[in-house]
Amino acid sequence: MSRGAHESVEAHLEHVLARIRPLAALEVPLADAGGLVLGASIETRLPIPAFDNSAMDGYAVRRADVADAAPDRQVTLSVVAEVAAGSPLDPAIGPGEAVRIMTGAAVPSDADAIVPFEDTDSGTRSVRVTAAPKPAAHIRRAGEDVAAGRQILEAGVVLTAARLAAAAAAGLARLAVRPSPRVAVIVTGSELVGPGAPLRRGQIPESNSVLLAGLVTEAGGTVVRVEHAPDDADAFAAALAGAAAEHPDLVVLSGGVSVGDHDIVRTALEPLGSVDFHSVAMQPGSPQAFGTLPGGIIVFGLPGNPVAVAVSFEAFVRPALQLLRGAARTQRRRLAAVATAGWRSPVARRQYMPITIVDGAHGASGGGLRVRPAAEGGSGSHLVGGLAASDGFAIVEAGIDEVRAGDEVQIVLVDG
Amino acid sequence: MSRGAHESVEAHLEHVLARIRPLAALEVPLADAGGLVLGASIETRLPIPAFDNSAMDGYAVRRADVADAAPDRQVTLSVVAEVAAGSPLDPAIGPGEAVRIMTGAAVPSDADAIVPFEDTDSGTRSVRVTAAPKPAAHIRRAGEDVAAGRQILEAGVVLTAARLAAAAAAGLARLAVRPSPRVAVIVTGSELVGPGAPLRRGQIPESNSVLLAGLVTEAGGTVVRVEHAPDDADAFAAALAGAAAEHPDLVVLSGGVSVGDHDIVRTALEPLGSVDFHSVAMQPGSPQAFGTLPGGIIVFGLPGNPVAVAVSFEAFVRPALQLLRGAARTQRRRLAAVATAGWRSPVARRQYMPITIVDGAHGASGGGLRVRPAAEGGSGSHLVGGLAASDGFAIVEAGIDEVRAGDEVQIVLVDG
Repeated sequence: MSRGAHESVEAHLEHVLARIRPLAALEVPLADAGGLVLGASIETRLPIPAFDNSAMDGYAVRRADVADAAPDRQVTLSVVAEVAAGSPLDPAIGPGEAVRIMTGAAVPSDADAIVPFEDTDSGTRSVRVTAAPKPAAHIRRAGEDVAAGRQILEAGVVLTAARLAAAAAAGLARLAVRPSPRVAVIVTGSELVGPGAPLRRGQIPESNSVLLAGLVTEAGGTVVRVEHAPDDADAFAAALAGAAAEHPDLVVLSGGVSVGDHDIVRTALEPLGSVDFHSVAMQPGSPQAFGTLPGGIIVFGLPGNPVAVAVSFEAFVRPALQLLRGAARTQRRRLAAVATAGWRSPVARRQYMPITIVDGAHGASGGGLRVRPAAEGGSGSHLVGGLAASDGFAIVEAGIDEVRAGDEVQIVLVDG
Repeated sequence: MSRGAHESVEAHLEHVLARIRPLAALEVPLADAGGLVLGASIETRLPIPAFDNSAMDGYAVRRADVADAAPDRQVTLSVVAEVAAGSPLDPAIGPGEAVRIMTGAAVPSDADAIVPFEDTDSGTRSVRVTAAPKPAAHIRRAGEDVAAGRQILEAGVVLTAARLAAAAAAGLARLAVRPSPRVAVIVTGSELVGPGAPLRRGQIPESNSVLLAGLVTEAGGTVVRVEHAPDDADAFAAALAGAAAEHPDLVVLSGGVSVGDHDIVRTALEPLGSVDFHSVAMQPGSPQAFGTLPGGIIVFGLPGNPVAVAVSFEAFVRPALQLLRGAARTQRRRLAAVATAGWRSPVARRQYMPITIVDGAHGASGGGLRVRPAAEGGSGSHLVGGLAASDGFAIVEAGIDEVRAGDEVQIVLVDG
């Protein structure tokens, strides 16, 4: 079935996402949660910091004792104890007394300021103080960063190192996360041969399995199977059965979704009843198949051209994987850039043009991003050579027939 | 040893990078190269496409036969053969003859244009052509994308899915890559206890090991050991020995690099002779240790505060890991953004302020990026709570004492 010619990218994406539910969350130790998506918002178990602690190495004092200290009015205090970081001690401090204290150690209850080493003679039995501290000087108050019971991470964020560290600091040992989606890849085409194999007339190296497996991994999925099938109904059915045996959440196919005689993918999937074939108003990547296989496995059928595969994945499969793994953000952040060279775009379609960032090796130019088409010779968004040089895609909406040098364009970066 | 107070971030980074050499490259199968850095530039083994092939499903023809075809001047040709994608056939085409051809199939030597199905009656024994093709219509010429022997990937690029696919399409089966650096993490501090353990007065949850292990992984390194050591010379020596036993390329420590009595890291490392302690003009993260351990293992000693750890890692350890793994780009791309709220910055230091992107959930606003400090209450770049909400850092150079709402700032994004 086809749901109308030249559906927009947004309409097709909405159709896809409406049919996908996030995978069920499960609890894992913090150390296993890196890179996964948080399944439920979390609150601090502890205030951060958990207790009043010293921000400096120095002396915990009663501020009244040293309120008048100055280089020429030094005040000598008796050092009655020492608290290192991690120490459970809470030594009493009487008038004229001080406690030597290390950064991070709990501030004794009797102290109301810290005098850092540099304002003292660093004495061990007694200490001469040469400057008066301000009230509560160098004391980090319990909860001054985050109070206990405050939400610190929202469901749907990717658990970066920094976010995991914040959760650990907040006293959490386990987190609810959604698992990485299990993905099977099937690449079709009788003309395709494995890497390095000798080529006869009519044969080309197979590159879509490497592409799709890599894109799945980059999107946070887990590749559980890669199958290659020639344009043969039995071989394709066997590949599909092999993929399904891995209990994938999603199957992604390349090739066989257009109208040719040999498009056995279409022939095999259509009878399964819930796979639709769409013509989407995009360049490249117009023919798209999407649906579910028996058992509820989500299936995407992408075109066979590698650039169309990369673009179709970016537009539809990657958002689907983000939704499956529970990410609140299903699409990449779009950035504004200036085109340093122009190109043509089909007015009736949204164009995804592979682009290269134009700047120094360290990218430290600041200012605005500048981009040019990744494939030499300007346009040619179907060209594989452009993939090699591509830092991402410019997205040129339908209605625009040309990008001119100097125009601002919307881009997404895919190289991290 | 200390090489002068308040060295600039750039000077310290230069000092670090000057002492690091990329790891030796090795050859691996294409499928194992994902995410690694290319060790040597590569050229295409094959032209892309490898042979003239059809861009459409249709008929390969002698154009002269159908030069006058039109809906009201249909031309009938005899279909003498069929070539599917992958077929080795090169059937002869005489005057008045055509060959049925599928997308991707090699164009017969006698043909000089493809007539797509939609300009025919799709006949199998004979075909009626209803429109004249342009010269070479729908023929992709061998090498029109990339000629054989052309460089397609430069040494130093990260092998994304798209780049691997381009290498596969160009006929390569193995690539020279540099390995992922082996990294050991040692976290020091007697106040630190493992996740979920009950806390006594003075103790806090240990979060730096999760942070450092995650940052190493995100930077393309491989964590081979994580050690925790209390502030005790013997325990630290044991942790260091345990780390060294894994033959790491790099050891990263947190805590113990400032001037306190209990900074046993400093005490332990200084006698090893080639570890220097620096004061870098940055906020947070000023005290930094860097050098080599016996055996040439690179060692970084970072401050103990988690935000200072994250910032020090970003400023120095991540670039070092990029250089070790051979990446041409050692630093992240800086982007321009507009601050929606102001904050203060220390005029004598470069500030790294954790920031949150201010925009819709899908980030599809386009235009410019807008950012605000990640920690509530404005400044406070030492605050752990800010890490949870952080999408990256604003980098405010020394010489600037305040960022005002509406100012343009330089940012790096760390959330992918």
